[in-house]
Amino acid sequence: MILINGESKEHIEVSDRGLQYGDGLFETIAVKSGQAQFLDRHLQRLNAGCSRLLISPPDNKLLKNEVASLANQADRAVVKIIVTRGTGGRGYRQPDVVKPTRIVSLHPYPDYPNSYQQQGIHVRFCATRLGLNPTLAGIKHLNRLEQVLARAEWHDPMIQEGIMLDIDGYVVEGTMTNLFFVKNEALYTASLEKAGVAGIIRGVVMEQAALHGIKIFEGRVSRDDLLSADELFVCNSVIGIWPVRQIEHQQFLVGPLTRQFQHWLEHFEDKGVQNEQ
Amino acid sequence: MILINGESKEHIEVSDRGLQYGDGLFETIAVKSGQAQFLDRHLQRLNAGCSRLLISPPDNKLLKNEVASLANQADRAVVKIIVTRGTGGRGYRQPDVVKPTRIVSLHPYPDYPNSYQQQGIHVRFCATRLGLNPTLAGIKHLNRLEQVLARAEWHDPMIQEGIMLDIDGYVVEGTMTNLFFVKNEALYTASLEKAGVAGIIRGVVMEQAALHGIKIFEGRVSRDDLLSADELFVCNSVIGIWPVRQIEHQQFLVGPLTRQFQHWLEHFEDKGVQNEQ
Repeated sequence: MILINGESKEHIEVSDRGLQYGDGLFETIAVKSGQAQFLDRHLQRLNAGCSRLLISPPDNKLLKNEVASLANQADRAVVKIIVTRGTGGRGYRQPDVVKPTRIVSLHPYPDYPNSYQQQGIHVRFCATRLGLNPTLAGIKHLNRLEQVLARAEWHDPMIQEGIMLDIDGYVVEGTMTNLFFVKNEALYTASLEKAGVAGIIRGVVMEQAALHGIKIFEGRVSRDDLLSADELFVCNSVIGIWPVRQIEHQQFLVGPLTRQFQHWLEHFEDKGVQNEQ
Repeated sequence: MILINGESKEHIEVSDRGLQYGDGLFETIAVKSGQAQFLDRHLQRLNAGCSRLLISPPDNKLLKNEVASLANQADRAVVKIIVTRGTGGRGYRQPDVVKPTRIVSLHPYPDYPNSYQQQGIHVRFCATRLGLNPTLAGIKHLNRLEQVLARAEWHDPMIQEGIMLDIDGYVVEGTMTNLFFVKNEALYTASLEKAGVAGIIRGVVMEQAALHGIKIFEGRVSRDDLLSADELFVCNSVIGIWPVRQIEHQQFLVGPLTRQFQHWLEHFEDKGVQNEQ
């Protein structure tokens, strides 16, 4: 089920700048019991992204209704929003008048085993590096070749995520997740000023840490930092929080703070849904 | 006129990875007297790009026929080829079986005044920087937000191109062109190992320089290098070679080597077309 500018369709114009240049943004939203989770936060990030890319943000009320109309149909699902700058022009210059394209689509919830959340996952380091660019860092834009290439590096079904370094060799995030580690009861994550996507769950985790008096360090993270961590976890809107049990040959225990964040996220989600109504 | 996988259509599936992630490549080809210019070189670059992105390259004979069928209809025009990884999957991981999407479209030739080629153009420095990423540098992929944002910086119709620096402050290229400068009768251009697109005309210019014993330096270029150049020009497949007359407030003469390269390019084009038959 796909809505394009509010109409049920499955195709967009070839001249859409989303296809021509990756000229747009997206959001991937979990649906539980027919409700889009953290919807206000997703729309807030989408609007911030539109502002960064100079795209007119879509009417949020309209978008909320469209998301709700798809989410209502599903118990457990994923709703994806894509907003592109619109159609027009062969050339990077946007037309003087351009109307953004709004695409809302419903997808099955991926059938991840419960064990990923409970016992944790195995991850690897990717060879594909993230480029550095403050202009595009943080937002969830459609220029995602780096992630596609990183995800194409492995086929082993025992590996659930790949960790990406930037071209300077610092750890940034997973191909589809943000990454946290715990060391001496403090929480660490990579700064996203030059690369990476500022995930919704990443924001929630950091808020929860602050709320509960857990020290947070956001900065440069090295491979060695990860490998000497007490606890490690990855997160995104669809999976929630997955503990990392193993990076390549190095094993980790699923620690108490990871469990705590999982608990807080579960709790927070309920509250988030209420706020969104 | 648009051919998608050989069929006349104007729409693609929303699930095409070209839209979802900018997961593909493109070529922009000049048409003169119904003939696609430098077609073999464009297809060669497209194939090299497919190889870098692990996309199955389209059948080149098929693609040539499709380009010819559109080019034949026009005296002066632009043909654009887009190749995406194909449709499928919500997520960066590509489906196990995926068939590339091949889009060939015909566009009017932009109505640039002759003066751009003859008297030269005015350019500016863009504030938007190019990120650094050797994995994606050189190829003409669909992740083009940097160029879109750079081109959105100015609306002054007296400025025909913007020069982009990388995040380290080195000059790379124009938003839609490669950039050369001449100093003491040697030719200089930016190395494209970490950013930029290796243009077809850039390649032709460098071949011609080598053929005629002109020294070429490909490396790091600074703003000061440009501003102290004897001659400057930009090039791409659609415009050919445009001399730069002015960068912001600094003026330049249209020099003899620029004229020489324009002449060689004209000559080379005829030969290119014969070779392609």
